[in-house]
Amino acid sequence: MTLLDQPHHDGSAGYVPAGRHEAGDVVPVRVRVPHAAGVAGVWLRTVRDGEPRVAEARLDRAGEHEDTYVADVVVHNQPTPYRFLLGAPRAPGGYRWLNGAGVHEHDVPDAGDFRLTTAPPAPAWLGAGTVYQVFPDRFARSARAGDRTLPAWAVPTAWDAEPAPHAPLTAQQLYGGDLDGIAEHLGHLEDLGVTTLYMTPIFPGRSNHRYDASSFGSVDPVLGGDEAFARLTAAAHARGLRVMGDVTTNHTGLGHDWFARAQQDPGSPEHGMFLWAGSGDVPADGADIDPRHQPGYVSWLGHHTLPKLDWSNDEVWRRMVDADDSVIARWLQAPYELDGWRVDVANMTGRYGVADRALQVAQRLRERITQLRPEGALIAEHFHDYTGDLPGDGWHASMNYSGFSRPVWGWLADPAAGYRHLGLPVPYGRGPGRAMVAAMRDFASRVPWQVAAAQWNILGSHDTPRVRSLLGSAETVELAAAMLFAYPGTPMLFAGDETGAVGSNGEHARTTMAWDQAATGGPRWDLTTYGVFRSLSRLRRDCGALRDGGLRWAVAEDDAVAFVRETPDERVLVVVARGPWSGATLPPWVLGTQAPELLYGGSYVATPSLSAGPDGVRVGGAGPAVGVWRLA
Amino acid sequence: MTLLDQPHHDGSAGYVPAGRHEAGDVVPVRVRVPHAAGVAGVWLRTVRDGEPRVAEARLDRAGEHEDTYVADVVVHNQPTPYRFLLGAPRAPGGYRWLNGAGVHEHDVPDAGDFRLTTAPPAPAWLGAGTVYQVFPDRFARSARAGDRTLPAWAVPTAWDAEPAPHAPLTAQQLYGGDLDGIAEHLGHLEDLGVTTLYMTPIFPGRSNHRYDASSFGSVDPVLGGDEAFARLTAAAHARGLRVMGDVTTNHTGLGHDWFARAQQDPGSPEHGMFLWAGSGDVPADGADIDPRHQPGYVSWLGHHTLPKLDWSNDEVWRRMVDADDSVIARWLQAPYELDGWRVDVANMTGRYGVADRALQVAQRLRERITQLRPEGALIAEHFHDYTGDLPGDGWHASMNYSGFSRPVWGWLADPAAGYRHLGLPVPYGRGPGRAMVAAMRDFASRVPWQVAAAQWNILGSHDTPRVRSLLGSAETVELAAAMLFAYPGTPMLFAGDETGAVGSNGEHARTTMAWDQAATGGPRWDLTTYGVFRSLSRLRRDCGALRDGGLRWAVAEDDAVAFVRETPDERVLVVVARGPWSGATLPPWVLGTQAPELLYGGSYVATPSLSAGPDGVRVGGAGPAVGVWRLA
Repeated sequence: MTLLDQPHHDGSAGYVPAGRHEAGDVVPVRVRVPHAAGVAGVWLRTVRDGEPRVAEARLDRAGEHEDTYVADVVVHNQPTPYRFLLGAPRAPGGYRWLNGAGVHEHDVPDAGDFRLTTAPPAPAWLGAGTVYQVFPDRFARSARAGDRTLPAWAVPTAWDAEPAPHAPLTAQQLYGGDLDGIAEHLGHLEDLGVTTLYMTPIFPGRSNHRYDASSFGSVDPVLGGDEAFARLTAAAHARGLRVMGDVTTNHTGLGHDWFARAQQDPGSPEHGMFLWAGSGDVPADGADIDPRHQPGYVSWLGHHTLPKLDWSNDEVWRRMVDADDSVIARWLQAPYELDGWRVDVANMTGRYGVADRALQVAQRLRERITQLRPEGALIAEHFHDYTGDLPGDGWHASMNYSGFSRPVWGWLADPAAGYRHLGLPVPYGRGPGRAMVAAMRDFASRVPWQVAAAQWNILGSHDTPRVRSLLGSAETVELAAAMLFAYPGTPMLFAGDETGAVGSNGEHARTTMAWDQAATGGPRWDLTTYGVFRSLSRLRRDCGALRDGGLRWAVAEDDAVAFVRETPDERVLVVVARGPWSGATLPPWVLGTQAPELLYGGSYVATPSLSAGPDGVRVGGAGPAVGVWRLA
Repeated sequence: MTLLDQPHHDGSAGYVPAGRHEAGDVVPVRVRVPHAAGVAGVWLRTVRDGEPRVAEARLDRAGEHEDTYVADVVVHNQPTPYRFLLGAPRAPGGYRWLNGAGVHEHDVPDAGDFRLTTAPPAPAWLGAGTVYQVFPDRFARSARAGDRTLPAWAVPTAWDAEPAPHAPLTAQQLYGGDLDGIAEHLGHLEDLGVTTLYMTPIFPGRSNHRYDASSFGSVDPVLGGDEAFARLTAAAHARGLRVMGDVTTNHTGLGHDWFARAQQDPGSPEHGMFLWAGSGDVPADGADIDPRHQPGYVSWLGHHTLPKLDWSNDEVWRRMVDADDSVIARWLQAPYELDGWRVDVANMTGRYGVADRALQVAQRLRERITQLRPEGALIAEHFHDYTGDLPGDGWHASMNYSGFSRPVWGWLADPAAGYRHLGLPVPYGRGPGRAMVAAMRDFASRVPWQVAAAQWNILGSHDTPRVRSLLGSAETVELAAAMLFAYPGTPMLFAGDETGAVGSNGEHARTTMAWDQAATGGPRWDLTTYGVFRSLSRLRRDCGALRDGGLRWAVAEDDAVAFVRETPDERVLVVVARGPWSGATLPPWVLGTQAPELLYGGSYVATPSLSAGPDGVRVGGAGPAVGVWRLA
């Protein structure tokens, strides 16, 4: 029995009617039950107000190889969880559960249940193509960039120089990229199949990364200021690109006016905006308070340069969100018209000790963004377990380190490259494909499908080693890229990954773009790698099944995984092998009436053989290999 | 490798210092790492304000077979999650996680992490012995019972008559048990090793079960009224027994004064206490509104006799909780001095549609109880997935159908008895032991240990078939009883189970006690079964490891399970086999310096052989069998 012989449901259009579901709606949901699964009887279990209800599903379509059942979910709670009960008279125990994480032989808690949310899904543009992450200091210099006065902290650095891997230079090296430079290279984004430009912060700070804002009220003049920003967003919008900004809601920089006044005057409105040692909400453990800085204040992970905002304070809400010229509101409006925000350290925003306003902050940010930009997007930075933070009505989605990046790195990272698992003191060891798939299913199952379908999947960012370094070879990067563009969610590409950039940690990875090598290739612009990313990114943008389809796992072997992406109109098979394996035979129903069409085959690596016969589809065991086929 | 070769931690005193942990506390937690696990390097991961932190654990004690590591958890959030990172250089992937559900080869979300809560644990008396559930109409009749006027709805029924299995008689048959009758038989509870008497509702209603209260202000005169209740609690307290009541916070009865006024007068304060069709908070789906009753109101699962309270209404809070003579407060005070409440339909209380005040209700009930009775207890009825409802600061614990009853029934129910899984349309099939253990671990891991250690474990209640009927034989009941009294938590025994009572559903199972057969036995008083329950209940009450010890699974085979319960002073091994199996060899470290002491062996079933040698402990494969040994 292969994975494809298991009953299947997900939140895609083949199973759940698309669009928003409101309280009171009766939503028919479908489940496909292969005959090979040996199921006798299908029921739907919903949970309403904390109590389960079980109702028999109706046979919707009897097929040659599998049947489809349908049952009604009454949307009642936010979210409304559901799962399927499968009679299994031949199996011990007598029944199985099907929820978002798969088929279970024992009772499992509801956390992995499918669920309908009453919240509108993320805007369609978000997952429709590649999000391209630009670190503004490192992308491109316009002609005007040379004229600007550099701040005192900056260490001007030549465009071609390798970034320093360690402090203190890491935050001080200024390469001088600017917003007009980005505007000049929007054609590169288009060529690459990118649909959204996402920039890390553009507010002035005391560092090249600008996550330590000294103001949220103006764009850093070193980047060209407010006017350059308006020019950039106008140019991007003219090309049909969306633009997303990056804001720190968890903290400001030490140099921010708000914090300066807060420190000087305990009676000031600003004082209440931060968390101070000794105040009621700050527990005695003094967590994240650097004792060397007085008066003591809570800061991000104890870094005194990043004082933490107190979301129990009304003035924080007003200045950050609610006021007409609030941080969130101002840049969504003309002449900038940002299409949304990626929120830094979203996982910690509004959380400190026993106070937890994280979901409330997310809901209000979403509300505010939607007021001003009905198509606006809100994405959480989340390095950790986001499953409790994404009920669907706050963040549209999060950066998917836990449910995509870490599993893929764990499967593909080169142990010889010598990296440790991100944030962990243990080296990579190339875990089995089943572990990658289990982790991906586990995390994806705990958020509504509409969130999973918008998650920002990431091979690398300005906070990680370059994927090329981590995986050790361009060949393996091709495998990872296939996962990125074929998996449900929003592919987010860190500028430079498409050229084969290297870097040993987040700071070292903030390399500049070698535009002078773009046409002909060169040591800092790998044309083959560029072709891999360009082809896959365009394929995803143009292929409905990869963009919007459901996800049905087919193979989870040590060295190979395969899955099917499917809409009512299209079925695509994706095979990725990191090494030779035994191959697999997939059941006949995956085939359509026409011969499989290869949509992507290996550039650096092999393309698996695929032979269709009456017994099913034989996938060859070549590896490393990658193949993407349209089956129907 | 056996399960005992895996690294282990739980929240018991051998691993975590006992007592309450407050924000800011630095709590050293220990983990035991058998050499056989092949672990190289142990770290602690905590999550603070949504962000993980990893710190190396210190070697605390190097042993011959296993090492103990210790690391510090700073209590910061409510709860503060933690888990262990285990270096596994010989295993693919390079590391493992240890959390409450066991050892994982892939990244798992935090839901199963160990956790420290800042809330005080449940009162110690709660888990210290057996809770004995009495359905007042069916337990015992005092001499005064015959004098009382019966309500019009009642169908007087002879004490020895079999309860009707189906409506309408089920709720109307009145056997006439009363509170003085209970008081007369407290010696039975003592003999059985019971430490807490829990009674289902004693307020008047229009049914024998009284979950449809027509008043919360007085005890049903049919039961003897307020005075009899005061006599009973005084008598119980005099014997050192605790007494718990049962209250419906989700709904009242149709005949309640509050609801009568609410229906008559839309302008009354009572009107706002219920949920009415067409009001803002009630979604258009009309869920749980019986269209035949006007004006339409939300009721429990649509039963019009049980109108649902609206916990967004201040008057509900006042009358139910906050007022001096509120429902919750009144009966905790003299002359009644209840020791706590079991709350009916707790899982739905405060939940309707998108409004969810369930946790808030639980917190406030807890606060109020603790104000009046610092040692008071609060238990949630919860037939479903309670894992999101037990953070530790509301309900002390819940009825553990999901994490105990259902797994045990699924393993031991007799398919030939013809029952269906509770609430499911599928018959029992005797699932494998591993499925039972997986479900038990899964649910237990998602609540703080101090909650898991107080959960009300149940073999049957007034809402289920009798365990004797479900499992099909007294032999199998002995196996289930061993699980009940040996598993962490609070054993809750439904009066009559200890005499071998039978019943095919909750109503049919509400049998009377055949006191006339108690001395000599009889068809309704099985003396051997009584001996099984009495011995196990007393063993648990008197054995520290069974009462307070940690839980380390040793065997999870199809037909047998075994686990170790352990305090710093005592180690107990429990083996339960439903049939013959292959036996197992447990590692040598489970042995102490003295020979194993048999604490309980089978009465109906065999006692497994146990032979201790230098290679470990050999457990024989007899079955059905049960054995409990003190090993150290």
